[in-house]
Amino acid sequence: MTVFLNGRFVPESEAMVSVLDRGFLYGDGLFEAVRVANGRAFRWDAHLERLKRGADYVSLRLPCTEEALRDWVGELILRNELREGLLRVVLSRGVGPRGYSPRGATEPTLVMTVHPLPPQSADRAAAWSLVTSRMRLPANEALAQFKTCNKLPQVLARAEADAAGADEALLLNTDGHIVESSSGNLFWVADQHVCTPPLASGILAGVTRSIILELCIELGIQTRQAPIAPVELAQTDGVFLSLSTMGVAEAVSLDGRDLSRSPLTEHLRLAYLDLIDRDTR
Amino acid sequence: MTVFLNGRFVPESEAMVSVLDRGFLYGDGLFEAVRVANGRAFRWDAHLERLKRGADYVSLRLPCTEEALRDWVGELILRNELREGLLRVVLSRGVGPRGYSPRGATEPTLVMTVHPLPPQSADRAAAWSLVTSRMRLPANEALAQFKTCNKLPQVLARAEADAAGADEALLLNTDGHIVESSSGNLFWVADQHVCTPPLASGILAGVTRSIILELCIELGIQTRQAPIAPVELAQTDGVFLSLSTMGVAEAVSLDGRDLSRSPLTEHLRLAYLDLIDRDTR
Repeated sequence: MTVFLNGRFVPESEAMVSVLDRGFLYGDGLFEAVRVANGRAFRWDAHLERLKRGADYVSLRLPCTEEALRDWVGELILRNELREGLLRVVLSRGVGPRGYSPRGATEPTLVMTVHPLPPQSADRAAAWSLVTSRMRLPANEALAQFKTCNKLPQVLARAEADAAGADEALLLNTDGHIVESSSGNLFWVADQHVCTPPLASGILAGVTRSIILELCIELGIQTRQAPIAPVELAQTDGVFLSLSTMGVAEAVSLDGRDLSRSPLTEHLRLAYLDLIDRDTR
Repeated sequence: MTVFLNGRFVPESEAMVSVLDRGFLYGDGLFEAVRVANGRAFRWDAHLERLKRGADYVSLRLPCTEEALRDWVGELILRNELREGLLRVVLSRGVGPRGYSPRGATEPTLVMTVHPLPPQSADRAAAWSLVTSRMRLPANEALAQFKTCNKLPQVLARAEADAAGADEALLLNTDGHIVESSSGNLFWVADQHVCTPPLASGILAGVTRSIILELCIELGIQTRQAPIAPVELAQTDGVFLSLSTMGVAEAVSLDGRDLSRSPLTEHLRLAYLDLIDRDTR
């Protein structure tokens, strides 16, 4: 793989950062995972927008113009001859004096890598088993809406799913409501509405989540944002996750108990795949 | 500086990790900050113990024996001719396949660096102004007791203190109780008791915190563990923080209002400095 690192394209083996980089020390950074289809970054503008809002929130500076970044994205995809896959952008605060204070850390690190899609994200429907993680995220914490490099709760939640032989884990917040899965936003179907937790639950403001809500409007499906507990999720008409890798992933069980399945899930999954194709041709 | 990196001693300029290291991507790792005095790592065993418990909790493996690690610590201090300072140990999950699952990441990264003490931590008493951060940490989350590399809330809290011209920031949990400062555990004096929040508040199980509680027993000072809100802290007889860099740091104001000062703070500060000296000679 060719990697983009601070304005240069380097082989993966040379793509290194200092052990004093605050990304490595504290997870002091942000990232984006962007679907690449037909050799183009799908909804790049929405990802860039979130990255910029997150950077504002944590007082990080994008070390280049938006135009330069867009050109580098295109060049990275070309150099790696990537048609279908995933683009990862990491912006860390770089090296600074020891300690938590970001003072004196003035040169952010910008890295971009490309990756194949996970095997399950070919154009096949998912049928995922979920478990509820023991990890708790803070309810109503503004930082949660950004894709920060503080992902240890998600790593551990995903490890719980692995250990249980499940596909994904749901994380709860300190109020006992479901936030999201380790790598996707949560949706469910109830009374012919497509529902998802509100930002105040401490969820990531997922780009794919926004697109799903957009698609619902386009398709005339009503939507609702509301908090939900695991016991309530088991009573709904259908459950799915939204992920940048594969769009819509249907969940078929939670903690070993079957979930209902709604035809709206497959409807949205196909509409999403169609949108990716339309947008990137 | 000479840096320890995966079994080798290298110059700082060559101490690099892959941009695919999960420490850099997700903060998927743990660290320790250990006071070095008289050329020795103060209470190394307690730090190693916490590192091992944390590694167990997040399913990380120490990639060497305890004896090898102890020898490397000694050699790193020697090579850097460090008498007074700070030793930093970082254990990350290393490189693995893309995604949150830790599966397939089998070679942890182990880094050790040394640093000078911050200028304010010479043998002078601190008189710190504190502010209350807007960041909220999850109450009652077991992961919080370990020193993980997910420290963005602490970084942002410290930035709030910097912006306010204060020395440190206090973080609250989702119950509204104070957890700790960005880099230290909280103590206060009330009714001649030295008090500190319990682990259930979501606090870091600080090594210096344990030593302070030990010293209280040795000195015949009664202790109490209880949750506390900022408004209650302002009513106590004295407030201090415990930090590995400087032991006891007295707080003299909170959000611009003066705090009471207790002679017990200075008593414990001196006892701590004395203990460091006794233990490392």
